[in-house]
Amino acid sequence: MLPFSFRLRSTDGAARLGELETPHGIVQTPAFMPVGTQGAVKAMRHRELEEAGAEIILANTYHLLVRPGDALIARRGGLHRFTGWTRPILTDSGGFQVYSLARRRVITEEGADFQSHLDGARYLLTPERATDVQAHLGSDVAMVLDECVALPATRDQAAEAMLRSVRWAERCRRRLLDLRRGAISGVVVSTPAQAQFGIIQGGVFQDLRDESADRTLRIGFEGYAIGGLSVGEPLDQLYAVTGDTARRLPADRPRYLMGVGTPDDLVECVARGIDMFDCVLPTRNGRNGQLFTSQGRINIKNAQYAEDDGPLDPACGCYTCRHHSRAYLRHLYMAGEMTAGALNTLHNLSFYLDTMRRIRDAIAFRTFENFRQEFLRSASRLSLDS
Amino acid sequence: MLPFSFRLRSTDGAARLGELETPHGIVQTPAFMPVGTQGAVKAMRHRELEEAGAEIILANTYHLLVRPGDALIARRGGLHRFTGWTRPILTDSGGFQVYSLARRRVITEEGADFQSHLDGARYLLTPERATDVQAHLGSDVAMVLDECVALPATRDQAAEAMLRSVRWAERCRRRLLDLRRGAISGVVVSTPAQAQFGIIQGGVFQDLRDESADRTLRIGFEGYAIGGLSVGEPLDQLYAVTGDTARRLPADRPRYLMGVGTPDDLVECVARGIDMFDCVLPTRNGRNGQLFTSQGRINIKNAQYAEDDGPLDPACGCYTCRHHSRAYLRHLYMAGEMTAGALNTLHNLSFYLDTMRRIRDAIAFRTFENFRQEFLRSASRLSLDS
Repeated sequence: MLPFSFRLRSTDGAARLGELETPHGIVQTPAFMPVGTQGAVKAMRHRELEEAGAEIILANTYHLLVRPGDALIARRGGLHRFTGWTRPILTDSGGFQVYSLARRRVITEEGADFQSHLDGARYLLTPERATDVQAHLGSDVAMVLDECVALPATRDQAAEAMLRSVRWAERCRRRLLDLRRGAISGVVVSTPAQAQFGIIQGGVFQDLRDESADRTLRIGFEGYAIGGLSVGEPLDQLYAVTGDTARRLPADRPRYLMGVGTPDDLVECVARGIDMFDCVLPTRNGRNGQLFTSQGRINIKNAQYAEDDGPLDPACGCYTCRHHSRAYLRHLYMAGEMTAGALNTLHNLSFYLDTMRRIRDAIAFRTFENFRQEFLRSASRLSLDS
Repeated sequence: MLPFSFRLRSTDGAARLGELETPHGIVQTPAFMPVGTQGAVKAMRHRELEEAGAEIILANTYHLLVRPGDALIARRGGLHRFTGWTRPILTDSGGFQVYSLARRRVITEEGADFQSHLDGARYLLTPERATDVQAHLGSDVAMVLDECVALPATRDQAAEAMLRSVRWAERCRRRLLDLRRGAISGVVVSTPAQAQFGIIQGGVFQDLRDESADRTLRIGFEGYAIGGLSVGEPLDQLYAVTGDTARRLPADRPRYLMGVGTPDDLVECVARGIDMFDCVLPTRNGRNGQLFTSQGRINIKNAQYAEDDGPLDPACGCYTCRHHSRAYLRHLYMAGEMTAGALNTLHNLSFYLDTMRRIRDAIAFRTFENFRQEFLRSASRLSLDS
């Protein structure tokens, strides 16, 4: 296994072209990570993800913790061997799902006490436990446990959660270092070279973001994420906070914007210095028949596609676009065939991953600003459906 | 496009090795046809079916008639161009779903008057209309419209339905011949070389089966099916009626046993002279976590597989068995991931199609009886789950 490292290959304005070296392989950045919540990207086979160009996927620690359990996965040798996905995996810390999904949660300085949404079983997710669970899962990149705040948050609430997140980040880092030097018994480290990313919080308050960045950088991580955005704030605020925060982060570490976003968001946030993204949009929208194309968005349910023999996206080379017409895809969707969700997801992910490839090419050729303008004129149009 | 033909290549006892030549390609027999009810085999991509060795699939006329409609499919150029499946397709006549699925059906000598199970729209499916719809669909093999009887049927009920089915078969054949010579305007013949199979009825009464066979053979079809079996009768009766009826059919025409069956049934009925099968078992059971393996059946939900790192079937070379463990497949199933249904279906179909390949090899090498005994000792065991 390779050690973890990041190499910045070139820049174009604030946009960065780079390469993550992880224990399970190399990831070209800027990168989009398809979301594989329960150890599987919904409706996809692993080989389809690979064909679409996915170099890394995200798995949700909360979901795997409550089913089938991190101990079971550790006994299988970690998430890679359990799932058969051989390329890199990033795991979140579980904090966001504790906030959005779990029942009867009580957050204290110690950690998050909650009941599983599945069967009501009690769990205590401390920073140490979140680090141990991810050691069991053996992801290539682990995230620190942070505290999510309910929106809209006052400045005081955002500050308090940010400071607690910094304290938790310190505990997560200490635990990881202890795990690395073998000081913790009873925890299986499935991927010894696992990296750990800190998370910058602070809501939409830039001074809090700055303070969070400074404090998190002092702890020191292999990479840095920007969390707590894309949760309902206006787009210009998302972009502004992302850009201002990214500028404060060291050039030699990867920067990950969590939970973002639309194809436009990817382009706009690459323009502001982001290297990594994840979002459920391509997969969830795919299952709902909402499709991203080079000419704008399509709702395949729309009657105008009933007799449309053309491909979903004439500019796309994915399996779906090479083999099936809009008319057939609409029929499958209307007929409730699960193949509809699969073919649509495959296209949406291909579109996202192809967009990332084009972004990387544009940065390499120093034509990113042209690409961005062109992209925003075409693919980002809200809808082709009249 | 090729014309339709059947070539009997060799026999071993009553078992037959043959080759169907159809407008969309060659099918090795004995053949199993995966069921693609709505123009798609549930949970499968076309290329996965091809990789698994499917040379022909079945599509249901009733389902396509009520959605998206045969006229829409005819305007697309037929089912092959509409769905993107380029290999042979057999369509049923729609009669069985009218019997099992439709609402307020009234069967008269003219045909079946019914309401769609989807939206209550009225349809009249006559023998002529059933032939026209299948001409629109452009399948390689069309089936005649027959009358299904409620079970248990008296001898009189079975005789009446059999005789009506013969009269309907005559009308279907006349219509097809009219379509072939271009005498019917307003019907698009999507596949001019489409073949048509007659169906032998008569329930479990062998004298009625014999009479049905004699009358249907006098009409004359490119192939013959045995219908109305595998509907609840004891296995020995299924096998006996199949064997006795198959013996009455001409050696130079393909024989199709409709809606059958388990892996055992396939082997036993090949032993009785059957060339073609279809059944929802591998696909439906796959979605329900019921798996066929070379060592017996597995219910993947069973707790004994939670930490089983072995493949589903060590003797299987399918994508699922090459890439995933029982533990992962169980996790996906328990987590409700649609990928579970897909991976399980892929395995079950691979097992069925691989069984057909082994059957064909055994006939070619004149070792079919040995194969049959061995198969019934291993793969047909009811369950591996304790």
